[in-house]
Amino acid sequence: MIHLYAFDTPNGRKISVALEEMQLPYDVTIVDIGKGEQFAETFLRISPNNKIPAVVDDEGPEGPLSIFESGAILVYLGQKTGKFWPSSIADQAEVLQWLMFQVGGFGPMPGQVHHFVGLTDEQDRRYGLERFQAETRRLYAVMNRHLDKRRWFAKELSIADFAILGWVWRHARHRVDLADFPAVARWYADLMERPGVQRGFAIELRRQPA
Amino acid sequence: MIHLYAFDTPNGRKISVALEEMQLPYDVTIVDIGKGEQFAETFLRISPNNKIPAVVDDEGPEGPLSIFESGAILVYLGQKTGKFWPSSIADQAEVLQWLMFQVGGFGPMPGQVHHFVGLTDEQDRRYGLERFQAETRRLYAVMNRHLDKRRWFAKELSIADFAILGWVWRHARHRVDLADFPAVARWYADLMERPGVQRGFAIELRRQPA
Repeated sequence: MIHLYAFDTPNGRKISVALEEMQLPYDVTIVDIGKGEQFAETFLRISPNNKIPAVVDDEGPEGPLSIFESGAILVYLGQKTGKFWPSSIADQAEVLQWLMFQVGGFGPMPGQVHHFVGLTDEQDRRYGLERFQAETRRLYAVMNRHLDKRRWFAKELSIADFAILGWVWRHARHRVDLADFPAVARWYADLMERPGVQRGFAIELRRQPA
Repeated sequence: MIHLYAFDTPNGRKISVALEEMQLPYDVTIVDIGKGEQFAETFLRISPNNKIPAVVDDEGPEGPLSIFESGAILVYLGQKTGKFWPSSIADQAEVLQWLMFQVGGFGPMPGQVHHFVGLTDEQDRRYGLERFQAETRRLYAVMNRHLDKRRWFAKELSIADFAILGWVWRHARHRVDLADFPAVARWYADLMERPGVQRGFAIELRRQPA
């Protein structure tokens, strides 16, 4: 059994979507980052950077395995199942470059938009918001140019698509209108029609008020 | 032969260090990002996100291979050579989580410090500089706690260490005093004593004035 430690965020959803698409059995422990639960000592032992998501796999290839960082978890799950992860090194390189594009850019940059959008002091907010919105839009343009020629980011649907999906899912929050990026909009609609993706977004990653 | 397209930046140095440590023959094409050379059409074909580094390997596993994103390049080089990249999936997961820690955090965050440090308008600069310096220091604390118990980030010296090294190399620029993080300082000194690392930092990635 796989144990997912997550919350209802882009990086959390990447993993719930991948687990559903790979049809792996798992249970969920909600780590409410709004309440600072990621700083608990027990969670720190699993995730030394105090970030969700993290995964513990009781049936890892060499016994129980604990792993943090959503990008690393996606590669691990791809390797474990052979799904959404190609077998040749050349094809893996193609998937990895788009996965890294997400982890290093299309994640940190819209994430900063989410932060600066939320500031109330106009002075603190103005410069950073402009900067990170511009960079986020530039990344959408890169994706749009690529998806104009390709159905998925790599040759086949892959973990790179799930990684990027987690963030496109929050496009309204970083103030991007998908109508400006029609190839991304088409790709997003294709993904959101998949039953596995729908299950991945439906599963509860946030505690309901009692 | 491997062709490296790079400039004298943390992400460029990750790859020159890895190539030297892996003893792979390569040549260098300097892409001067100060002059906007990353926006040339010829470079865009190799690197659709207009970022350095990128690599073209004439002798890829299935013919010539072009790859962008430093994290993806590191994994590819590790797979190609079997060096600084473990063979078991469990050990690879351990390397990947620290590689992703760098790509997603300890890179974007100090990179923003480098940007905000350079602003002249005090109003634009203040909030972002505080924010990204604090986050960068937090990441150093995570690394220091880990390296207090371990010689390298994973079981053995790996591509994850090279990835993180590229950014620690610029600690002064993001205003971090390594004396505050003694385990990181020890790890950094160990790496900088290696002849391969020294060659990786010595190779010219910036054109000398004529």
